Amino acid sequence: MNRIYLLVNIKVMNKEKEFNDYRSRLNERLLGTKDKIIKRIYNLDTNAFLDGHLNKETKELIGLTCSLVLRCDDCVKYHLGKCYELKFKTEEVIEAMSVASLIGGTIVIPHLRKAVEYWDELNSHV
Amino acid sequence: MNRIYLLVNIKVMNKEKEFNDYRSRLNERLLGTKDKIIKRIYNLDTNAFLDGHLNKETKELIGLTCSLVLRCDDCVKYHLGKCYELKFKTEEVIEAMSVASLIGGTIVIPHLRKAVEYWDELNSHV
Amino acid sequence: MNRIYLLVNIKVMNKEKEFNDYRSRLNERLLGTKDKIIKRIYNLDTNAFLDGHLNKETKELIGLTCSLVLRCDDCVKYHLGKCYELKFKTEEVIEAMSVASLIGGTIVIPHLRKAVEYWDELNSHV
Amino acid sequence: MNRIYLLVNIKVMNKEKEFNDYRSRLNERLLGTKDKIIKRIYNLDTNAFLDGHLNKETKELIGLTCSLVLRCDDCVKYHLGKCYELKFKTEEVIEAMSVASLIGGTIVIPHLRKAVEYWDELNSHV
Amino acid sequence: MNRIYLLVNIKVMNKEKEFNDYRSRLNERLLGTKDKIIKRIYNLDTNAFLDGHLNKETKELIGLTCSLVLRCDDCVKYHLGKCYELKFKTEEVIEAMSVASLIGGTIVIPHLRKAVEYWDELNSHV
Amino acid sequence: MNRIYLLVNIKVMNKEKEFNDYRSRLNERLLGTKDKIIKRIYNLDTNAFLDGHLNKETKELIGLTCSLVLRCDDCVKYHLGKCYELKFKTEEVIEAMSVASLIGGTIVIPHLRKAVEYWDELNSHV
Repeated sequence: MNRIYLLVNIKVMNKEKEFNDYRSRLNERLLGTKDKIIKRIYNLDTNAFLDGHLNKETKELIGLTCSLVLRCDDCVKYHLGKCYELKFKTEEVIEAMSVASLIGGTIVIPHLRKAVEYWDELNSHV
Repeated sequence: MNRIYLLVNIKVMNKEKEFNDYRSRLNERLLGTKDKIIKRIYNLDTNAFLDGHLNKETKELIGLTCSLVLRCDDCVKYHLGKCYELKFKTEEVIEAMSVASLIGGTIVIPHLRKAVEYWDELNSHV
Repeated sequence: MNRIYLLVNIKVMNKEKEFNDYRSRLNERLLGTKDKIIKRIYNLDTNAFLDGHLNKETKELIGLTCSLVLRCDDCVKYHLGKCYELKFKTEEVIEAMSVASLIGGTIVIPHLRKAVEYWDELNSHV
Repeated sequence: MNRIYLLVNIKVMNKEKEFNDYRSRLNERLLGTKDKIIKRIYNLDTNAFLDGHLNKETKELIGLTCSLVLRCDDCVKYHLGKCYELKFKTEEVIEAMSVASLIGGTIVIPHLRKAVEYWDELNSHV
Repeated sequence: MNRIYLLVNIKVMNKEKEFNDYRSRLNERLLGTKDKIIKRIYNLDTNAFLDGHLNKETKELIGLTCSLVLRCDDCVKYHLGKCYELKFKTEEVIEAMSVASLIGGTIVIPHLRKAVEYWDELNSHV
Repeated sequence: MNRIYLLVNIKVMNKEKEFNDYRSRLNERLLGTKDKIIKRIYNLDTNAFLDGHLNKETKELIGLTCSLVLRCDDCVKYHLGKCYELKFKTEEVIEAMSVASLIGGTIVIPHLRKAVEYWDELNSHV
C-alpha cells in the first residue's frame, strides 16, 4: 500500500504579528524616501507619547480613544498594542473605548468590535 | 491501482452570513464585558429604529444614508440588511444612496460600490 | 425746551432671513463665476431632492440627518427650512434628528442645539 | 441747559457664562421635547464621565482630546470647563491638546487656538 | 440751540485683518506655552509649504483644497491669503475649490460660500 | 511507484488589476441602475479632472491629497494610478502626500503606508 504524505506548510501568523510586520516594512519604506516632513512627523509621534506633564499611560489612552473616534482601525491596533505593553486591564481599555463610542456615536461600533477582537488576540499569547 | 480520495470541505459562506456571524460574535463579546455604557448604547440603538413619530422604513433610510455619508461600510451593510427585510425596492435604496453620495461627495463612491455589491448579494438568495 | 428726537433705525432681521440672504448672495456670486463644476453641482442639488422613487419628504429627512451627522450647521438650517415648508411636525423633525445624534454621537449635540433653536425660529413666524 | 442722560445698559457677559447659558437653555428645550432617545443620550453622557475603572480626570482628558480631534469647539469648551473644575494645570491641558493636534493634524490648530483662548478666560476669574 | 455731538468711534476692521490679528495673537500664546509638540508642529507647517520637489504654488493649492474638503474655514482663509500673495487668478482658485467641492460633496458648499466671500475681500484692497 | 500530479492553477492577479477590475465591474453596475444623480456625479467626476484653468497634473495632485486627508484608500489608489499615467516622479508624489499627512495628522499615516505600497506596485510593472 502506498502512503501519501501531504506536507503542508501552513504559515500561521497571528494578526498581531501580521499587523506589526506590515507596519514596520512600510514605515521603513516611507522613511527611506528621505522626505523630511514624513521623517519629522514620525519623530514627533515617538516623542509625543513619552512621559511629560501627563504620564505615558494617560497619553496612550488619549491616542487610543482619539483613534477610535476618528475610526482608524490601524491606529487603534497600534495603541492597543501599547496599552497591552503598559499592562492596562481589560476593563480599563473597554471603559476608555466606551466613552469614545458615546462621543463618536454608533458609527464607531464596527471599529469597537475590531478593537476588542484585537485586544483579545493580544491577551491570548500567554 | 491506488485511488486517492481527497475530501475537501470547502466552507462556502456567503458574504451576508460571514458579516452577520462576525458581528454577532463580537457584539456578544462586547456585551459580555458588562460595561454599562456599551450596553446602553446597544439598547438605545435597538429602540431608535422602531416605529415612532416616523415609521421604521423612514428610519432605516436615515440609518442607511447617514452611514454612507460617514463612510462606514459595516454600518451600511447592516442597514441594507434591514432595508432588505423591510422589502425596499432596489430603485428606492439606490435613490436614497445617490442623494447621500451627492451630499458626501465622490469620496463616498467607493463605499457606494461596496454597498450595491452587498445589496445584490442580499437579493440573490431567492 | 428742546426735544431731541433720536431716530434709530434698528435693522431687525430674523435669523432665518439673515441666513437666506447671505446664502442667496453668495450662491449668486459662485454661479456668476461661470465655473462649470460648481454650476452643475448646484443643478444636481436641486434635482436630487425632487419627488422620485422616494418622495421629497423622505429625501428632506435624508438631507437633514446626513447634514447633522456631518455636523454642517448651515446645511442643517437649509434642510430645516425645507422641512418647515413641507409641513413636518416638530416631533417628526426631532425624532429624525435624535436618530442622527445616536449615529453621530454626542459630538453632534452642539449642532442639535443650534438646529432646534433654528426650528423654533422658523415656527415663531405665525 | 439741557442735560441728556444716556443710560446705556451694557450687558457685559463673559464668554464662559454666555456659552453656559446658551447651552443650558437649549438643553432644556431639547429635553422638553420628551424625545426618549435624546433624553437617554443626555443621561448616558452624564454617567460616562463619572469615576469608574478610570477616574474622572482621565475621562475628561479623553473627552477633551476626542472633542478636539473631531474639531467640535463647543465640546472642547465644555470639557475645558470640566478640566478647570477638576483643577488641571495649564501645562497638562496643553500637553493633552498637543497630542490631539498631532493625531488630528494642522487642521486642528484653529480649534486649538480657540481652546487656549477659552482656557485662559476660565483661568482669569480668580 | 443745543448741538449734540455724538462722537462715535467706529472700529472698522476688515475681515482679513481681524482674522490675521486673532490668529497671530493666539499663535503667540500657544508658542509661549513652551510645549515642544506644538512648537514643532508649527515649525513643520512653515517648512512644508516651501518650494521643494513641488513648487510652493502647487503646495498652496493642496493646502487650500485639503482645508476645504476637511471643512476648516480658518484653514481655508489662511491658504486663500497665501494664494493671494502668490498672485493666483480668481478662476484658478475657484477651479481648485470646485474640484474640492465635488470630492467633498454639497456639504462643502457653505464653506465654499465663505471662501469666495473672503477671496473677494482680499481682492478688494487694491 | 505512483506519481501524483497536483496541478494547481494559481490565479495570480496583481493588486492594481484587481482594484481596477472590481472598480469597473461595480461602476458598470451602478451606471446600469439608470439613476440620474449617480450618472451625473460620474460624469462630473470625469470632467472635473481635465485641463482647465489649472492643468490636469495639478488637479490630480488635488485629487490625491484630498483623498488622503479624507482617508479614502480606494480614492487614493485611483488618483495614484492617474499620477502614474501622468508620469509623476516618486519624490513629487511623496512630497504631495507628506503635506497631506501634516494637514490630516498621524491618523493619515496608515493610509500613507497603503498608498506608497500601491505606488510601488504601479512602478514595478516595467
